[in-house]
Amino acid sequence: MKYSIAIHGGAGTILRSNMTPKKEIAYTAALQNALAAGSQILAKGGSALTAVQAAVVDMEDCPLFNAGCGSVFNKEGQHEMDAAIMCGKSLASGGVAAVQNVKNPIVLSRLIMEQSPHILLCGAGAKMFAQQQQLPLMSNDYFDTQQRLQQWQKIKHSSKIQLDHSDNAEEENKDDNKPESANENHKMGTVGAVACDVNGNIAAATSTGGMTNKLAGRVGDSPLIGIGNYANNATCAVSCTGKGEVFMQYLVAYDLACLMAYKGMSLQAACSYLVHQKLPQGTGGLIAVNAQGEIALPFNSKGMYRAWKVRQEDGIVAEGIGIFKED
Amino acid sequence: MKYSIAIHGGAGTILRSNMTPKKEIAYTAALQNALAAGSQILAKGGSALTAVQAAVVDMEDCPLFNAGCGSVFNKEGQHEMDAAIMCGKSLASGGVAAVQNVKNPIVLSRLIMEQSPHILLCGAGAKMFAQQQQLPLMSNDYFDTQQRLQQWQKIKHSSKIQLDHSDNAEEENKDDNKPESANENHKMGTVGAVACDVNGNIAAATSTGGMTNKLAGRVGDSPLIGIGNYANNATCAVSCTGKGEVFMQYLVAYDLACLMAYKGMSLQAACSYLVHQKLPQGTGGLIAVNAQGEIALPFNSKGMYRAWKVRQEDGIVAEGIGIFKED
Repeated sequence: MKYSIAIHGGAGTILRSNMTPKKEIAYTAALQNALAAGSQILAKGGSALTAVQAAVVDMEDCPLFNAGCGSVFNKEGQHEMDAAIMCGKSLASGGVAAVQNVKNPIVLSRLIMEQSPHILLCGAGAKMFAQQQQLPLMSNDYFDTQQRLQQWQKIKHSSKIQLDHSDNAEEENKDDNKPESANENHKMGTVGAVACDVNGNIAAATSTGGMTNKLAGRVGDSPLIGIGNYANNATCAVSCTGKGEVFMQYLVAYDLACLMAYKGMSLQAACSYLVHQKLPQGTGGLIAVNAQGEIALPFNSKGMYRAWKVRQEDGIVAEGIGIFKED
Repeated sequence: MKYSIAIHGGAGTILRSNMTPKKEIAYTAALQNALAAGSQILAKGGSALTAVQAAVVDMEDCPLFNAGCGSVFNKEGQHEMDAAIMCGKSLASGGVAAVQNVKNPIVLSRLIMEQSPHILLCGAGAKMFAQQQQLPLMSNDYFDTQQRLQQWQKIKHSSKIQLDHSDNAEEENKDDNKPESANENHKMGTVGAVACDVNGNIAAATSTGGMTNKLAGRVGDSPLIGIGNYANNATCAVSCTGKGEVFMQYLVAYDLACLMAYKGMSLQAACSYLVHQKLPQGTGGLIAVNAQGEIALPFNSKGMYRAWKVRQEDGIVAEGIGIFKED
């Protein structure tokens, strides 16, 4: 019995010098819970697809992460969420963009994959489909966390939306000595999971509230198959977290698969080249797994909330949790 | 002075035996007009980006094509449109998904690219951005063409939406002997343009009304960078037309670029492999150009509305229009 799972809770300017012990304990526990939600399914012989969904649902229901109930506010003071899921065995996938009120966008993504003729639904249409599928809808204030409200209130009257996003790289470097709270807006708070099950099938799931103060209707990389999320047994399953528009320009998830398929690179070599050489530095990271159960969790930002568990055929288990670069 | 442009008006079950002379004349004239709109800009030394936008605007304003004013009806009887544009020199891009009332979604895509911090906006948020940018909005009936209404009315009460889409390949083969009207729903009516300008810069633009009776909020491949539309001076500019969900699964536009970049394939060889060997047959086609001005217009469906013009350095011009496979 051999399986692997890796999860992330977002990347960004996450520095030990800015982290309080209390906050570190909370994030560590949240990552442990999400990892357990997924790995328990794998340990019982469940599918990678079900495992990644369970891990992401757990993080969507945790207010610490920018997904589900912890989603950020957009320019209109609303919560619009993106998510996607993909099965590496069948290449079936589903995604949802800029959807409001849906408690678990990753569950909606799975339903779009399995119960609709389409791959991606957005906005009001996506919410209508959720209602038809009898998914729980929550009022807007379910998603109103105090931390996210403060983040938004600081910049909601800013006329520099464009600068807020496009100059992040510079600002992140400048902001290294500022307290954590000042850097909150520069976090790339997506959550995601990738897994390889006992049958050697792989899957990926990703969910996010996007960027604070984003324009209404903005779609990031997370819900887009081959951009923020991708799975193919022949190459890899991958979930990205970072500056969405940069990841969209580089088609990061599918590029990783192409580096493996067309250049013959290993998972590790392709991840290292893509994240540390090809992508602009400071833009984020990803988690990936292949059908042999190998995992990679590279990032080029200051930190990335992450956890992993690999069970080998001989019973040896390697697991860990990381937040900062040095972890 | 050397430049190239190729345009398409959709692929599908388009057979000479089903085409009336009157209809063929109308489509030929429409393709000529759109080609002229783009090539006139290139001949004056204008950019590939401006040329592909002009060609697509022309097709959006022509009711014969499923884009802009000729957009199909969705399940709710509405017109929701997708579009994207990308510059191969800067890798900047913009797209719009499931937007209503906007006369020219390709113009909105260009504004999202140049005037927003984002790449992709969808639904009500995209329309709000169009209003802020003072783009012309049209009432729903501007998009109500008689042909599209009839198509929708035939299937709007169907409970087989899924089958209508997922079994297209079989149906297309079965339907070869049926009159054209019976096959209308199986057309993949996207429009698009790719161009290489006198400076060797390339660009791609794509626009569509999607599929008749699609669910509200459905996003196809057209507005997604690297899927239905992509441009990079280092490889190619490409605009796809076909079964959106199949093109999404195969990441067709970026896959073409990766076959060239990572496998070292020529534009022609990569197009041929991708469209005729890798993609399921009967799913559509694409138009592509590289920075040397070479063009390709491969498709694996019965037909594809298409036109092209290539001006060599020695002044020789090659141009043509095609509808059927044998053209």
